Amino acid sequence: MTVLVLNGPNLGRLGVREPDVYGTATYADLVARCEQVAGERGVDVEVRQTDSEAEMIGWLHGAADDGSDVVINAAAWTHTSVAIRDAASQVTGTLVEVHLSNVHAREAFRHTSYLSDVATAVVVGMGIEGYAAAIRFVARA
Amino acid sequence: MTVLVLNGPNLGRLGVREPDVYGTATYADLVARCEQVAGERGVDVEVRQTDSEAEMIGWLHGAADDGSDVVINAAAWTHTSVAIRDAASQVTGTLVEVHLSNVHAREAFRHTSYLSDVATAVVVGMGIEGYAAAIRFVARA
Amino acid sequence: MTVLVLNGPNLGRLGVREPDVYGTATYADLVARCEQVAGERGVDVEVRQTDSEAEMIGWLHGAADDGSDVVINAAAWTHTSVAIRDAASQVTGTLVEVHLSNVHAREAFRHTSYLSDVATAVVVGMGIEGYAAAIRFVARA
Amino acid sequence: MTVLVLNGPNLGRLGVREPDVYGTATYADLVARCEQVAGERGVDVEVRQTDSEAEMIGWLHGAADDGSDVVINAAAWTHTSVAIRDAASQVTGTLVEVHLSNVHAREAFRHTSYLSDVATAVVVGMGIEGYAAAIRFVARA
Amino acid sequence: MTVLVLNGPNLGRLGVREPDVYGTATYADLVARCEQVAGERGVDVEVRQTDSEAEMIGWLHGAADDGSDVVINAAAWTHTSVAIRDAASQVTGTLVEVHLSNVHAREAFRHTSYLSDVATAVVVGMGIEGYAAAIRFVARA
Amino acid sequence: MTVLVLNGPNLGRLGVREPDVYGTATYADLVARCEQVAGERGVDVEVRQTDSEAEMIGWLHGAADDGSDVVINAAAWTHTSVAIRDAASQVTGTLVEVHLSNVHAREAFRHTSYLSDVATAVVVGMGIEGYAAAIRFVARA
Amino acid sequence: MTVLVLNGPNLGRLGVREPDVYGTATYADLVARCEQVAGERGVDVEVRQTDSEAEMIGWLHGAADDGSDVVINAAAWTHTSVAIRDAASQVTGTLVEVHLSNVHAREAFRHTSYLSDVATAVVVGMGIEGYAAAIRFVARA
Amino acid sequence: MTVLVLNGPNLGRLGVREPDVYGTATYADLVARCEQVAGERGVDVEVRQTDSEAEMIGWLHGAADDGSDVVINAAAWTHTSVAIRDAASQVTGTLVEVHLSNVHAREAFRHTSYLSDVATAVVVGMGIEGYAAAIRFVARA
Amino acid sequence: MTVLVLNGPNLGRLGVREPDVYGTATYADLVARCEQVAGERGVDVEVRQTDSEAEMIGWLHGAADDGSDVVINAAAWTHTSVAIRDAASQVTGTLVEVHLSNVHAREAFRHTSYLSDVATAVVVGMGIEGYAAAIRFVARA
Amino acid sequence: MTVLVLNGPNLGRLGVREPDVYGTATYADLVARCEQVAGERGVDVEVRQTDSEAEMIGWLHGAADDGSDVVINAAAWTHTSVAIRDAASQVTGTLVEVHLSNVHAREAFRHTSYLSDVATAVVVGMGIEGYAAAIRFVARA
Amino acid sequence: MTVLVLNGPNLGRLGVREPDVYGTATYADLVARCEQVAGERGVDVEVRQTDSEAEMIGWLHGAADDGSDVVINAAAWTHTSVAIRDAASQVTGTLVEVHLSNVHAREAFRHTSYLSDVATAVVVGMGIEGYAAAIRFVARA
Amino acid sequence: MTVLVLNGPNLGRLGVREPDVYGTATYADLVARCEQVAGERGVDVEVRQTDSEAEMIGWLHGAADDGSDVVINAAAWTHTSVAIRDAASQVTGTLVEVHLSNVHAREAFRHTSYLSDVATAVVVGMGIEGYAAAIRFVARA
Repeated sequence: MTVLVLNGPNLGRLGVREPDVYGTATYADLVARCEQVAGERGVDVEVRQTDSEAEMIGWLHGAADDGSDVVINAAAWTHTSVAIRDAASQVTGTLVEVHLSNVHAREAFRHTSYLSDVATAVVVGMGIEGYAAAIRFVARA
Repeated sequence: MTVLVLNGPNLGRLGVREPDVYGTATYADLVARCEQVAGERGVDVEVRQTDSEAEMIGWLHGAADDGSDVVINAAAWTHTSVAIRDAASQVTGTLVEVHLSNVHAREAFRHTSYLSDVATAVVVGMGIEGYAAAIRFVARA
Repeated sequence: MTVLVLNGPNLGRLGVREPDVYGTATYADLVARCEQVAGERGVDVEVRQTDSEAEMIGWLHGAADDGSDVVINAAAWTHTSVAIRDAASQVTGTLVEVHLSNVHAREAFRHTSYLSDVATAVVVGMGIEGYAAAIRFVARA
Repeated sequence: MTVLVLNGPNLGRLGVREPDVYGTATYADLVARCEQVAGERGVDVEVRQTDSEAEMIGWLHGAADDGSDVVINAAAWTHTSVAIRDAASQVTGTLVEVHLSNVHAREAFRHTSYLSDVATAVVVGMGIEGYAAAIRFVARA
Repeated sequence: MTVLVLNGPNLGRLGVREPDVYGTATYADLVARCEQVAGERGVDVEVRQTDSEAEMIGWLHGAADDGSDVVINAAAWTHTSVAIRDAASQVTGTLVEVHLSNVHAREAFRHTSYLSDVATAVVVGMGIEGYAAAIRFVARA
Repeated sequence: MTVLVLNGPNLGRLGVREPDVYGTATYADLVARCEQVAGERGVDVEVRQTDSEAEMIGWLHGAADDGSDVVINAAAWTHTSVAIRDAASQVTGTLVEVHLSNVHAREAFRHTSYLSDVATAVVVGMGIEGYAAAIRFVARA
Repeated sequence: MTVLVLNGPNLGRLGVREPDVYGTATYADLVARCEQVAGERGVDVEVRQTDSEAEMIGWLHGAADDGSDVVINAAAWTHTSVAIRDAASQVTGTLVEVHLSNVHAREAFRHTSYLSDVATAVVVGMGIEGYAAAIRFVARA
Repeated sequence: MTVLVLNGPNLGRLGVREPDVYGTATYADLVARCEQVAGERGVDVEVRQTDSEAEMIGWLHGAADDGSDVVINAAAWTHTSVAIRDAASQVTGTLVEVHLSNVHAREAFRHTSYLSDVATAVVVGMGIEGYAAAIRFVARA
Repeated sequence: MTVLVLNGPNLGRLGVREPDVYGTATYADLVARCEQVAGERGVDVEVRQTDSEAEMIGWLHGAADDGSDVVINAAAWTHTSVAIRDAASQVTGTLVEVHLSNVHAREAFRHTSYLSDVATAVVVGMGIEGYAAAIRFVARA
Repeated sequence: MTVLVLNGPNLGRLGVREPDVYGTATYADLVARCEQVAGERGVDVEVRQTDSEAEMIGWLHGAADDGSDVVINAAAWTHTSVAIRDAASQVTGTLVEVHLSNVHAREAFRHTSYLSDVATAVVVGMGIEGYAAAIRFVARA
Repeated sequence: MTVLVLNGPNLGRLGVREPDVYGTATYADLVARCEQVAGERGVDVEVRQTDSEAEMIGWLHGAADDGSDVVINAAAWTHTSVAIRDAASQVTGTLVEVHLSNVHAREAFRHTSYLSDVATAVVVGMGIEGYAAAIRFVARA
Repeated sequence: MTVLVLNGPNLGRLGVREPDVYGTATYADLVARCEQVAGERGVDVEVRQTDSEAEMIGWLHGAADDGSDVVINAAAWTHTSVAIRDAASQVTGTLVEVHLSNVHAREAFRHTSYLSDVATAVVVGMGIEGYAAAIRFVARA
C-alpha cells in the first residue's frame, strides 16, 4: 500500500517562507517526518510538491487509477481550484486534507475549501505533525 | 501532565445516535481509545461529557486555572456558543478542536465554528481516531 | 402510547408574559387543553416546561429511547440551538413543532428555525389550539 | 358561516403529482376530508382549486366582501405572488395558510412566504390533515 | 393621441381595500380624475383595470402596436413580474409608472420595481393625483 | 412520438419586439423551423405560445399525462414562476429549456432560472436554432 | 402659503452639467418654471440651491419652524445624508422628493434614498416638469 | 427600591481572564463599586453572576415579578441568546445593558446584540465604571 | 483640564425636534446639565453644536492639538461620515460617543457607527444623562 | 473553415470519471462524435484537451489569430478562471460554451460562469450531443 | 496649462496625524513636492486643501469650467460622497485619484471609492510620490 | 539593483487584444518604456510575461531569494489566484501592483484584488505609463 502525500504551491519553500506563520521546519523535514511515520506504520509513502495545477491534477488522476490513498495540502488552491476538487473527487482511496497553519485564524478567504466536502477528514494547525496524523489515519483505515 | 478531553451535547449517545453519520463506536469506545493513546504517550487523560453549557464553561475555567491542555468536541455548541469560546480562549495550554464527522460535508450551519480561530489545531472527520490524533499532538507539543 | 409535549424557555410564564403577543391563556390552561385533547384521542400526554437547555436535551433523549412522539415548542431556542436540533433529530416518533404566536409576523430572527426541517410538521399562530392540532395529528399518525 | 378552502396551482393533481412528496391522497380525498371536518364542526365549507392567479384573487375579493374565513394553500404562489398577498390581506375573517408538505425541508425558495405574516396561523407538513386542523381552528375562532 | 391608463391587481377595489393605506377615493373617482385631467389637456384617455397578467400583457402589446403613451400602476406585479416588464419595454411611447401609496415607506419587497428602469418617469405617494401628474406629463412630452 | 414546444409571454411578438435582442426571425419562422427539424427527425411537433401562466401550466399537465417530451421557452416566467417549475417537474419525458438570446449577457435577474435544475438540458443564445438543437436532442434521446 | 423648493449639490449647474443625463434646461429655467406653476396655483414659491449640507439643513429647520411645504431635490445627498433626512423629517408640511433624471435607470447607489420614506411623495424622471407636478400636488394638498 | 445587577458567563473570572481586554479590576472590585455607588444614591443593589442561562432567565423572571430595575451584562449571551432577550423584555423596570470592554472594537459577532433594542440604555467600554453609570441612571429614572 | 462636548447636526433643535424620540429637554438643558456635572467633578467643559461637518472636523483637530478629552454626539454623521471618524481618531485624550436615544431600537442604518471602534466608550439611550455619565467617566479616567 | 473544440481539466478521463454524472461515453467517443458531425456539415474540426490553463490560453490565442470558431468546455475553469475568459473574449469567431452535465442541477459554485456572457451561446446537459449541437450551430452561423 | 491638486478632509494635518499610517512628510512637503515635479514638467500647479465638502465641490466646478486637469485626494469623502463624485464627473480634463496610504490594506470601508470609476487613473500607497506620479501622468497626457 | 517587471496572462498580446480597452501600444512598447525609465533612474530592469501560473510563482520565489523589487501586473490572476498572492507576499523588496486599464470602471469581479493588500502601492489606469510610475517609485524607495 502506497500513500501519496501531495503538496501544492509555495510549500517547497517551507522554512524559508514566513516562518512566523508556517514554522521553522523545512520541506526536507516534512518529507522526513512523513517517511518516518509511514515506516512506523509499514506503508510506503511518496511525497511530492508542485506549483503547477496541471501536475497536481495529473498526480490525482494517477492516484485514482492506482486506488492510492492521498494526503493533500493543496495550499492556496484549496480556496480557488475547482479543477483540483474535480480531480480529487475521483480518488477512491481515503483522502485527507492537511494544512500546516490554522487557516481558520487567518484571512477570511482561507476559511472556505473546495476540497473539504469531498475529503474524508481534515487536519489543520498541527504543522508537519498534521501529516503524521493523516498518514496514521490512512494507514489504519 | 493531564489532558482534558471535553465533549459537548448529545455525544454521550455515541453509537446510539445516527450511526450512519457518527459510526457505530460507542461513547465507552471513545473513552477507552483516549485512555489507550494517552497511556502510550505517558500522559494522564480525563474524558468528560455534558449537555450543560454551564458545566462545560466550568471545566474550561478549571483547565485555565490548572494550565491543562484541552481536546474539545463542543458538538452543536461549536456553531452557536460564544460563551464557550470565551471560556476556551482563557485556556493557556494547547487547545485542539475535534469533530467526529466531516462537518464540512454537512449542513451549512456546521461550516462555521466559534472555536477554530482560538484553537491551536482542528481535526474533523476521523471518527474517534481524531481524538487519538489530538492527544498525540498535545502530548508532543 | 405517550405523547411528550415539551416547552422551552419563558413558556412557564404564559398568561403573565406579554399577553398582547401570547394571549391571556395561562400555562395551566395549556396543560389542561393538551390533556383534554389527548383524552379525547385516547393517548397519554405528558406536558413539561424548562428554561434549561440541558434538561430539554435530556427529555428528547428519553423520547428517542422510548420511541415517543413529541410536540415541541422550543420557544427562543428554535432560532438559536443546534444542540436541541441534534437531540430532536434522534426522535424516531413523529415530531411536531408548535409556536403560540405567528412567528412570521414578528422579528426577522424568529423567521428561521433549526427544528423545522427535522420536524414532520409545524403549526404556528394558533395559540394553545396549536397544541391541540399537533396532538390530534400525532394521535392519528 | 362558510369557510372557503382555496387551493393554488398544481394542487388539482394531488395524488398524481410526485406522490413521494405529496402523498397518495387525491384531490378528491382532500375535498372529502374538508367536508367531513366541516360537517363535524357544523360549518359550511367550499373547496376550490385554480391554476389562474386572477381567479384566486377574485375568490379572495369575494371572501373579503362576504367576511368569510379562508383556508388557503397558495402552493407555488406562496413564494412569488405579492398580488395574492395583497388580496389575502383584505380578508377580514380568519386566514390560515396550509401546505401539504414540510416546505422547510425542501428547496430554499420554499422557505419564504408572502402570506405568512398576513395570515393568522400557518400549518405545514400534515398532509391533508393540515386542512382539517385549519378548519377546526377557524370554526372555533 | 390616446393615453392608456393601465391598472393591475386589486386596484379595482380602491376605496374598499385598506383605506388607511390607499385612501378613501374609489376606483370610479380614479377614472373620473383621469378623464378630467385628460380633458383639460385635450387628449383621449382610456382607463382599464385587470387582475390577469395575461390581459395586462395584451394591453401593453396593443400600446406598442399603436404607439400609445402609457400610464401604468402595475401594483403588486411591479415587484414580481418580468413578463410585464418585457411587455412594457416594447412600448415606444412615453411610459410613466404610478403608485398610489408611498411604496418606499412600506415593506422592503415594495422598494424594488421591475418597471422603473424601463419607464421614463415614476410618481409615488400622490394618491390619484399621481395619475393626474402622469397624464399632464405625457400630454406635454 | 410528439414533442411539445411551449413558448411563454411576449414570444408571440418575435420579430416585432426588440429585434436587436431577439433577431429578425418571426414567430412564424420559429414554428416553421421546428416543424422542419421535426420532420427531418420523424417526430411530430406541436408549437404553442401563451401569455397566460394558467394555460402554460395546463399544457405541462397535459404533457405529464401523455408522457410527451417538452421543449420550453418560458421567457420571463423562467426567472419568476415557481408554479411553472412545479408543473414542469411533473413531466416524465425529456425537458429541454431554450432561450433565444444569451440570458447570461443580459440583466442579472435573467441569470437565475426556476426551470434549469428540473430540466434535462438547457440551450441559450442560438436564436431559433436553439429549438432545432433541442428537438434533435429530444428525438434522439 | 409659501412652498420652499430646495436644491442640493451640483444642481446650480443644470444645463451645463451632463446634458445627456439632465437635459438642456438651465437652472434659471427650473426657477422660472417653478414660479410659473406656483403663480398659476396662487402660492408663493422660493427656489434655492446650495452645495453646503449645513445650509440645506438650516433651510429645512426654517421650513419646520414656519410650517412650510417643501419640494426637495437633494441630489447626491439623497443617497448619503442621514443629517438631511433628520432635518427633513422635522418638516410638518407636505414634503415631496424630486429627481430630474430617472435615478432607477442609473448606478445602483442611486436606487436608495434616505428621504423617500419620510417624504409624502416622490417624483423622478420628469425633468423640470417634476417640480411642476410637485408644486401642484403641494398646492392642492 | 432594589437594583439587580446581573452578570453572565465568564464574568466571575474578571481580573483573571484576559486582563488586556477586561482590565485588572476583579469581580470583587466590580461588586464593591456597584455597592458603593448604590449607597451614594440610596438604593439597594444585588450583584449576581452565573454561567447558567437557565439561572439568568430565572433572575429576570424574578425581576419582572418584583418590578425591579435591572443592570445586565449578559456577556457572550448578548450575541446569541434569544431566550435571555425574551426574559429581559418582560422586565417592566428600567433595563440597562452594560459591557466592560468596547465590543464595537472587537470581533464582528460582538457588534450585534439581542438585548439592545429591548433595553432602555446601553453603556460599553467604561470598565466597571459602566456599572456605576448604569446604577446612577436607574436610580435617577 | 477641559472637556469638549461636541454635538452634530440637528441637535441644536433638541426639545423642538421629535420630542417622542428625543424627549422634552432642550439644548439649553443639555448645556446646563453638562456644566453642572463638570462643576461637580472640577473640570472645565465647553459645549458646542454645529450642522457643518467642516466645523466639527476643525473642533476635533483643536482637541487633538490640545490633548483635550472629547464627548461627542455626532448624531446623523455617526452613521455616514468617515471624515469625522478620521478627525476623531487623532484625539489622544479620552473619546466618549453619546447618543440621546437608543439607536439600536431605531432604523437599521442607525445601528452602525463609524466612531464606536475609535472611541473609548459609548453611551446610548440615557437622554441628557448620557452626557453626565460621559463627563464623569472622562473626569475620572 | 476549422472549428476548434477545446476541453479543459479532467475531461480526458471521460467515461472513467464519475459515470453517474458524466455518462459512460469515453473521450474517444466525444472526439469521434465531433468529427462525425463536422463531416456531415463539411467543416474541419480539431478536438483538444488539456489540464494546463496556460495551454488552453495559448489555444484561444491561436483561435483569435486564425479567426477560428471555438466550441469550449472549460470544465472547472468555467467557474474560476478570468484568464481563460480574457483569452476567450479575444476570439472573433463564434464561441459556444458546452457542458456535458446539467451544471444548474449541481453544486452552487457551478451555477456561475466567467465564460457565458462573452460566449455567443451555451449548451448544457446534453452529454456529448451538446458538442454536436454546438458544431452544427457554428457551421451554420 | 494648470493642474489642480485638491486635497480633502484631514490632509492639512499631514505629518501631524497618525505618522505610522501617513508617514512623517508634512503637508508643506506635499505642496513643495507637487511644485517641484510640476516645474520639471513645465506645468503650473495649484495645491489646495479643505475640510468643507462645499468648497471641494466648488473647486471641481471651477476645474470643469476651466478645462483643468485634476489630481484629487478626496480622503474620507472618497468612500462616502456622491456629491463630490457628481462634481468630479463634470471635469473634462484628466482626473487622477491619489491616496497616500494603501487603502486596500486598511479597513473594509476604505476599499470602495465613489471616484475611481469616473477617474482616468488611480494611484495608492506611494505617499507623496503618488502626487508626483499623477502630475507626471497628467502633464504627459 | 534589479527591478523585475512581471506580467501575467494575455499581456503578451498587448496591442493586439481589445485595443479599445488596453490601447494601441504593444507589448514591445511596454518593454521599451520600462527599459527607458529604468535607464533614466540607473536601475536594471527585467521584463517578463507568462501565461503559466507556475512560472509566475517561480519568478516571485526568485525575487524573494534575490531581494529584488517587483512591479507586477498579474492581469486576470489578480482577481483569482491566492497562489500568486502567497508567492508575492514572500517578496521582501518593494512590490507595486500595476494595471493598464482602470479596473474599477470595468466588471465587478475586477474590483477585488488578492494582491493589493500585500503590495506597497497600486497604480491603475495609466496604460504603460503606470509601469514607468512604478519603476520610478521603486527606484526612489
